[in-house]
Amino acid sequence: MPIITLTTDFSLKTPYPAVMKGVILSINPRAVIIDVTHEIKKYDVFTAAFVLGYTVKYFPKGSIHVCVVDPGVGTERRGIIIKCRNGFLVGPDNACLSLAARHMKTEKVFAIKEEKFLTSETSSTFHGRDVFAPVAAYLSLNKSVYEFGEEIRDYKKLSMDEPIVKGKLIEGLIIYIDNFGNMVTNISWRELRELGVELGDSLLMRFKGTEKPVRFLKSYGFGAKGELLVVINSFGFLEISIREGKAKDFLKGERGDKVVFKHT
Amino acid sequence: MPIITLTTDFSLKTPYPAVMKGVILSINPRAVIIDVTHEIKKYDVFTAAFVLGYTVKYFPKGSIHVCVVDPGVGTERRGIIIKCRNGFLVGPDNACLSLAARHMKTEKVFAIKEEKFLTSETSSTFHGRDVFAPVAAYLSLNKSVYEFGEEIRDYKKLSMDEPIVKGKLIEGLIIYIDNFGNMVTNISWRELRELGVELGDSLLMRFKGTEKPVRFLKSYGFGAKGELLVVINSFGFLEISIREGKAKDFLKGERGDKVVFKHT
Amino acid sequence: MPIITLTTDFSLKTPYPAVMKGVILSINPRAVIIDVTHEIKKYDVFTAAFVLGYTVKYFPKGSIHVCVVDPGVGTERRGIIIKCRNGFLVGPDNACLSLAARHMKTEKVFAIKEEKFLTSETSSTFHGRDVFAPVAAYLSLNKSVYEFGEEIRDYKKLSMDEPIVKGKLIEGLIIYIDNFGNMVTNISWRELRELGVELGDSLLMRFKGTEKPVRFLKSYGFGAKGELLVVINSFGFLEISIREGKAKDFLKGERGDKVVFKHT
Repeated sequence: MPIITLTTDFSLKTPYPAVMKGVILSINPRAVIIDVTHEIKKYDVFTAAFVLGYTVKYFPKGSIHVCVVDPGVGTERRGIIIKCRNGFLVGPDNACLSLAARHMKTEKVFAIKEEKFLTSETSSTFHGRDVFAPVAAYLSLNKSVYEFGEEIRDYKKLSMDEPIVKGKLIEGLIIYIDNFGNMVTNISWRELRELGVELGDSLLMRFKGTEKPVRFLKSYGFGAKGELLVVINSFGFLEISIREGKAKDFLKGERGDKVVFKHT
Repeated sequence: MPIITLTTDFSLKTPYPAVMKGVILSINPRAVIIDVTHEIKKYDVFTAAFVLGYTVKYFPKGSIHVCVVDPGVGTERRGIIIKCRNGFLVGPDNACLSLAARHMKTEKVFAIKEEKFLTSETSSTFHGRDVFAPVAAYLSLNKSVYEFGEEIRDYKKLSMDEPIVKGKLIEGLIIYIDNFGNMVTNISWRELRELGVELGDSLLMRFKGTEKPVRFLKSYGFGAKGELLVVINSFGFLEISIREGKAKDFLKGERGDKVVFKHT
Repeated sequence: MPIITLTTDFSLKTPYPAVMKGVILSINPRAVIIDVTHEIKKYDVFTAAFVLGYTVKYFPKGSIHVCVVDPGVGTERRGIIIKCRNGFLVGPDNACLSLAARHMKTEKVFAIKEEKFLTSETSSTFHGRDVFAPVAAYLSLNKSVYEFGEEIRDYKKLSMDEPIVKGKLIEGLIIYIDNFGNMVTNISWRELRELGVELGDSLLMRFKGTEKPVRFLKSYGFGAKGELLVVINSFGFLEISIREGKAKDFLKGERGDKVVFKHT
């Protein structure tokens, strides 16, 4: 039973995710459809890319992942299929598939022949329903991707700055803020090891002009209630948290903010 | 594998949708259950009817659609089953099934014999669990509808005003506001064609005492950021939108508001 | 097809519920995964216990229920498996499984041998993904629980005060507030019968220093619009409601508040 996952900014308040499922099940009644999330912030291609890139690692080989976060829908932007060693990615060519493609090991990229799916009668505003859902459903039936795709050389990729280590400092960025108000940085174990940071160490965190001491702990649960702390999160990135609180509100942090850690 | 869809105002914050699924799977472990949405505004029968009417078109023939938006639960209002050429509709007799019934081609209507499902021990407040979920599950096992339903002649239907075309004007209504703040009108291509409106044309929109020019575009993506525009949406209706904004907040629009378009 | 249900405080805005599903389907592609809810208030073990305790009654025998509301994740708290006559419960040992265990008829309790699942590489912050999802998936394949669990004698249980009946009074507590603003008490039919209360009777409700008359009705629908009333809800508990309103906002009620009813 082939798995198709859906990642969109439609919200579960709308019937649009269900409509995509109806379209998929009409083509392949045996498809197993899993929601990654439909609550991506509207048009937030970066977060979609990040969430999907993280999630695909945990799905079985052969899964088909559809992403519809698509501010350019109805314009000239292409729809694409990325054929990977571990499955397929389907969505608009706006970089939302690019981090997932890296994890799934890209083999070939195809532009979707949209004229196969869109008629003058079909809407130009809902490619999730009219193009991407059918493409995913046909792929799950093992149809050849060449039937509805044309191989292309290049597609849009996300650029993500790497953290910088200099002396006793690591300079990074906030790349994601989750629903718990945890602020995810682009810093990973690699940079921490370069500085010789170990679990339990104290760090000095410089953020928005102020310096604050933070402990580097194994997990939230080791912190005191209300303590500002950092952990390596389940994504593998250093994350700024407050135990049972919201780091984002306390620090007024936003995606893209710079953060510097000093090993004391 | 029969498909059963659920549309309710329970919210996914409650366990009630899951309880309905448990009941269904206890009766038919092979049922494929799809959420249309559980985030209909509480007791908003109109929106439920509209959402379900739109959604059923995309599901395979034979699907069973359950709707539980039911301000009258526990009173004398009947539960009904609408047997259609394309499947079944199950829910309270308060018009929430009526638009879907039109799309699915009504054949016969049945009042549910509730005494088959409700005992003095079962709650009178949760017919979704005690009546509608079991009915849907038994229908998915191909039980005869006559076992738990009694044929009736009539049931409640939604009345929806038609837009009016006079001279160079179309007068319509806001019939739905989606989660993106887009305001859906009851105006369709038919009325626009009558006026000779074409894609790219400018219209004058009269709303709440002010007049504003709007472009009629193929899709949001063709608008400038922040531009007020109209498109034919995926429901097939004219929709008032702001690219990457919320028309509803800008115009202070509500369902039922009148809107007039003039072809200039 | 074995059923695995998920109850968490992750929110569907995050990809974490989907990641757990990916892990489960990677181990058992035939698992049927049902969300109970992912919108438990963060770290609210009490509500999780209550919601799960209510929900499990409606699922088929043999279902496996996973709960991840886990403020102590990454600390010394154990993960446990409760083997019941009607299925399995999997989650942290913090009482979140205890009400469900009572309904499902506990047979044996096991501490999860976490070293089988956690490596130095895996995160210490996401046991839902790294421990509980795999355990549930292996159980759904009929693996012996002894392979990853060690029998233990005791585990944490929730304490819940019983209502008190004296003379013509019942003294109870608000134990849950649902999404509709309905306030659920710990009072059931048993106490009402002791006082001789019948449907349609008027009661005097003392709450936060004021007294208000309320009718005891069969269901919301029998109340007038805006009327404060009480019903026996689908959980089997007395619930304070306002028809088409929010009792919680009107009464400023919170979980744990005392309420007294007098039969007049």
